[in-house]
Amino acid sequence: MPGPHSSQLQELQPLMAVIHSEHEKPQEETANDGQPETPTSLQKARARFLKGVSYFSGDMEAFGNWMKKQFFLLQLLDWVLRGAAQVMFVNNPLSGLIIFGGLILQNYWWALNGFVGTLFATISALILQQDRGAIAAGLYGYNGILVGLLMAVFSNAGNWYWWLLLPNVFMSMMCPIVSSALASINSRWDLPVFTLPFNILVCVHMVATGHYNHHFPQVLIQPRSELPNITWANIDVAKLFQSVPVGIGQVYGCDNPWTGGIFIIALFISSPITCAHAVLGSTVGMVSGLALAAPFENIYFGLWGYNCVLACIAIGGMFYALTWQVHLLAMTCGFFCAYLGSAIANIMSAFGLPACTWPFCLSALTFLLITTGTKAIFKLPLAKVTYPEKNLCFFWKLKKQEKMEKAEKEEQQQKTTEEEVKVNEKEQLKLELERMEEQNSLSDALERQLEGTYIENMETDVRLHVPEEEITNRD
Amino acid sequence: MPGPHSSQLQELQPLMAVIHSEHEKPQEETANDGQPETPTSLQKARARFLKGVSYFSGDMEAFGNWMKKQFFLLQLLDWVLRGAAQVMFVNNPLSGLIIFGGLILQNYWWALNGFVGTLFATISALILQQDRGAIAAGLYGYNGILVGLLMAVFSNAGNWYWWLLLPNVFMSMMCPIVSSALASINSRWDLPVFTLPFNILVCVHMVATGHYNHHFPQVLIQPRSELPNITWANIDVAKLFQSVPVGIGQVYGCDNPWTGGIFIIALFISSPITCAHAVLGSTVGMVSGLALAAPFENIYFGLWGYNCVLACIAIGGMFYALTWQVHLLAMTCGFFCAYLGSAIANIMSAFGLPACTWPFCLSALTFLLITTGTKAIFKLPLAKVTYPEKNLCFFWKLKKQEKMEKAEKEEQQQKTTEEEVKVNEKEQLKLELERMEEQNSLSDALERQLEGTYIENMETDVRLHVPEEEITNRD
Amino acid sequence: MPGPHSSQLQELQPLMAVIHSEHEKPQEETANDGQPETPTSLQKARARFLKGVSYFSGDMEAFGNWMKKQFFLLQLLDWVLRGAAQVMFVNNPLSGLIIFGGLILQNYWWALNGFVGTLFATISALILQQDRGAIAAGLYGYNGILVGLLMAVFSNAGNWYWWLLLPNVFMSMMCPIVSSALASINSRWDLPVFTLPFNILVCVHMVATGHYNHHFPQVLIQPRSELPNITWANIDVAKLFQSVPVGIGQVYGCDNPWTGGIFIIALFISSPITCAHAVLGSTVGMVSGLALAAPFENIYFGLWGYNCVLACIAIGGMFYALTWQVHLLAMTCGFFCAYLGSAIANIMSAFGLPACTWPFCLSALTFLLITTGTKAIFKLPLAKVTYPEKNLCFFWKLKKQEKMEKAEKEEQQQKTTEEEVKVNEKEQLKLELERMEEQNSLSDALERQLEGTYIENMETDVRLHVPEEEITNRD
Repeated sequence: MPGPHSSQLQELQPLMAVIHSEHEKPQEETANDGQPETPTSLQKARARFLKGVSYFSGDMEAFGNWMKKQFFLLQLLDWVLRGAAQVMFVNNPLSGLIIFGGLILQNYWWALNGFVGTLFATISALILQQDRGAIAAGLYGYNGILVGLLMAVFSNAGNWYWWLLLPNVFMSMMCPIVSSALASINSRWDLPVFTLPFNILVCVHMVATGHYNHHFPQVLIQPRSELPNITWANIDVAKLFQSVPVGIGQVYGCDNPWTGGIFIIALFISSPITCAHAVLGSTVGMVSGLALAAPFENIYFGLWGYNCVLACIAIGGMFYALTWQVHLLAMTCGFFCAYLGSAIANIMSAFGLPACTWPFCLSALTFLLITTGTKAIFKLPLAKVTYPEKNLCFFWKLKKQEKMEKAEKEEQQQKTTEEEVKVNEKEQLKLELERMEEQNSLSDALERQLEGTYIENMETDVRLHVPEEEITNRD
Repeated sequence: MPGPHSSQLQELQPLMAVIHSEHEKPQEETANDGQPETPTSLQKARARFLKGVSYFSGDMEAFGNWMKKQFFLLQLLDWVLRGAAQVMFVNNPLSGLIIFGGLILQNYWWALNGFVGTLFATISALILQQDRGAIAAGLYGYNGILVGLLMAVFSNAGNWYWWLLLPNVFMSMMCPIVSSALASINSRWDLPVFTLPFNILVCVHMVATGHYNHHFPQVLIQPRSELPNITWANIDVAKLFQSVPVGIGQVYGCDNPWTGGIFIIALFISSPITCAHAVLGSTVGMVSGLALAAPFENIYFGLWGYNCVLACIAIGGMFYALTWQVHLLAMTCGFFCAYLGSAIANIMSAFGLPACTWPFCLSALTFLLITTGTKAIFKLPLAKVTYPEKNLCFFWKLKKQEKMEKAEKEEQQQKTTEEEVKVNEKEQLKLELERMEEQNSLSDALERQLEGTYIENMETDVRLHVPEEEITNRD
Repeated sequence: MPGPHSSQLQELQPLMAVIHSEHEKPQEETANDGQPETPTSLQKARARFLKGVSYFSGDMEAFGNWMKKQFFLLQLLDWVLRGAAQVMFVNNPLSGLIIFGGLILQNYWWALNGFVGTLFATISALILQQDRGAIAAGLYGYNGILVGLLMAVFSNAGNWYWWLLLPNVFMSMMCPIVSSALASINSRWDLPVFTLPFNILVCVHMVATGHYNHHFPQVLIQPRSELPNITWANIDVAKLFQSVPVGIGQVYGCDNPWTGGIFIIALFISSPITCAHAVLGSTVGMVSGLALAAPFENIYFGLWGYNCVLACIAIGGMFYALTWQVHLLAMTCGFFCAYLGSAIANIMSAFGLPACTWPFCLSALTFLLITTGTKAIFKLPLAKVTYPEKNLCFFWKLKKQEKMEKAEKEEQQQKTTEEEVKVNEKEQLKLELERMEEQNSLSDALERQLEGTYIENMETDVRLHVPEEEITNRD
């Protein structure tokens, strides 16, 4: 069934950001292997080091390929770990493992819920026969981990309230359904679904039960109804700096700065560009909070950072190829995301809801939808998105190819002009020959008839119908 | 004007779910007529009974065709009755009549408002020159009946407040406009508009006036602000069972269990599959309410049921062909719909609004948007949707056709291979003949020229241009 | 790079409503110049007058073309003025100048903020390399002026709070980004973005800071919580009539009736149809307010008018060609817009937000999305939208062309029928000739072969392959 399958694949593209195999060797290597003769021992060591790095950096493709031949449960673990890291757009099981470490450092119960969420979201995707490549890249798991984690974080029933696993499993298993549905819409604009399924499902769960519920009570969130007490003299600069890693930790709902620090390491392993933009994003969020006179506790708690972190990563190199214009765009998106974050938080609080990652989703989607006349802002086709470094290679290759094609075209154009001149000469020769033939005195009735068929043939070539005059010719 | 008309028809497809005529006889009949010779009197009686049933079950196509030749007002009545039943996806005037009976049993004033709403919505569609087939199927009426009914149900001015007919008529006449606009959007994903126009228009009316209004006050709906008093010992099992028909009645805003029972009969007449899913949906909603610790009165009142009823009908056989996988999907959709229903009810209550059928619309649209690798979940093209039984026939026929085509293809492939062998033999023979001709000692200049035209002709077949060598041949 | 550029242009179409140059002379002129010989002095004077009028009415195309050769800052001023008028769909710098006059009459500080908003929105569009034609038409400025104005209007920090310029500049510069993103979506349905970017950005700013904020406090807006005091005896008819111009002024957030009057003049200069629909729209809004029992102060204050003004202009001649059916549709849209306006105002007040122009955007988009079978409701392709009078000319020309094409087609059909008769006669003659030839006793082997090639040729025409029988013919 190639028809439906391919159309389905097309629909799935938004989810398949990171699955396409790396047929070319990583750029860094080839750049270093570029010096072919007599490498010094230092160069050799460096090459070997980079080769080693390539095994666990990026999307760990070699490991992924090796995994394909392993036991199913081991594969599933790989997918779950990649799913955990995909929250930050990282397709790397090692990063996922480190992130789970950070979560355990924060809270055992939360970590367990996150794991259950990722697991069941992945299993549900398998049951629904979603694209295997997307599942293997963890693209069906990242909403699951967030659903699991945040349902535990916002539950008012305390830790180790085991009943919570019931809605957790149900909502996690809904993730692939909502993902698939949203992908059907977003794919029309070649956009990813981001964490929209998580936002929708956690908000549905929280507002469906609410604070006043016997089974699944939520923490009480209320809109601000008086001026917050902000005294600039009381500002704690150390906590302000700490808010940067805390902001990164808050992507997973964690307020422990060490957890945030561990997440930074997990990002750095896979992609330094992603890591840099995460830190920058968190800083942008913190500054925005100060500019909009937010209560200091919210800023310290990282609530101004996590959306900007995600927005900066998404725009700064992940879905656009990183140029300095794109870098500026990512910063702008960060500021807009912080603004929007405050707005959404205030609106959602009217329903007792947190902002989740709505601000990130909406601002990033807005910035991915813009069209501009400059070539420096290049949006990667969704199927080609992997990680910033590789995206950049793709962009450079495309540019080089374009340049070459242009040069080739010009060359060819020159050639065709020359050829045309030649052809024209031949044509003229041919016409002259024909004319000579026609004027030939030996032309008898039979000859004329043959000539008739000849002319006729020429005309069939062009008009594909027998001219009528022929009849008169023939009798 | 075929161009614009056809494009308009395409836009309208979401509304034209049930209008395509039934050229084949119903499956059951043919299955029974399959035994051709000497039917026993029992078989004859059964066939006659089934033939009789086919006249008023399904979409009553024969009646609809007969109606086309009748007086306009009679036709309009048919459309209005079909519109009343289309709320439950039933295109059947008899069901519509029974449903109106149920409404009258509930409340005269509400029934009157419902009738006025359906009537004016249909008239408005006629004025706006919407597709006649869609109008005749009641697809412009069902939002009207809901608008009329629910405006009366939620009015705080009491029964027989005649001024209410003014906004009722206005909002009913807006239905086709909003339907048409939404269809323009939803048709891009081949999705129906469901009851979205009703949801939008009733919410606009209710929130525009609100509880504190001199002309059109609404009942007071407020968000929950304390723990509801739920004592499991006090549960009333009889009322719990009653909540199943009440939930079906609440689709039309009716809390009378007898009215709900009458609606069940109306569904059964047209389509037993629809009826079964309605009952199942209501049960799913009731169970969900208990699971999420909803106040018992809300469950008894059917508020947890009506959205699930509609969602289960829509997914379970109406827009997907019914397989057991689709049946499970419909159940899942029911549970999700109940969850979402609680969430939306809580959010809307902040604005003094009821949940209407937003939960059904959103959950059903989500489940209709998913893409999956399995063939067992087959979404019918919107233009082919009629009623579950007929949809199933369509699905089976399609599958059979596919199988036959596949078999035919294989056969043809075999044939072509055989033919190719034959052709090759002929070709070789031909080539040999030509070679013989060429070697013929009688070959004179004229012969050669004729041969030239022949070769040339063969080449025109393929390349459609006169080869240049000819010129040399000819001189 | 023609590929991306053209696709980008397509995406931008929603914003390029008014930029296409007026190659034909205005209709009125040609109508008057229609009497070619010996114009009386009165006619001459009238022609001269109309020519003069054409220089500053409509979209002042001649002025725009002249501007293209001027100093950049002067051009920028032209764009800013056009942007100021584009709020009312008017692409005319003179109207823009008059509108700024009205704003200054209302409040210096607001006018300054409006100017800053328009300026920075236009500059931002230039930086983002948006389409130059759209920028020159002011299509990137109108959201900026509204953002600037309304942020000043709703600021609780009082006039001349200079810090406000900071968020003003930021949000204005976000306008082209949001515009471009929304255009990517709306262009799929050939819809403009209207003032959606303004609505989004102002709401984001207002709700992000809120009433309780140290830096940028907003005015306090709260939902109604008791019956308003409405005594029909106390109605002030003079104020009711005044509410019509006030409603037009409220499009720019101005409550001064003189400012509203000045805006009416600005509209009349460019397009009398626009002006008439603005006044009608404001009246429709006022009547709706009375019908829905709104507090009189709100009606006097123009809060019921401004959305209807914009909706009536948009539907009544701007995006649909003006016929009397479209005029009725515009009135209906006005009433629906007022209804929706009340609904949205009540919802938004729960978050301390004003209704902005959401009601206009949503109702106009709904009415632009409808599909209908009647030709009298003709939606102009977005790229052809200019101003109502010119749109009407375009519509008439299209209709005339269609009629001519139809007539031509019929004529051609008649011709082809005649020709077919002739051809048939010829064919029969030909066939007879052939038959005669065949029966010719002089037919020798050579003749037969020639005939063979002839038949063969005829067949290549149709089937493009050499028949097999030939081989037998030839030996």
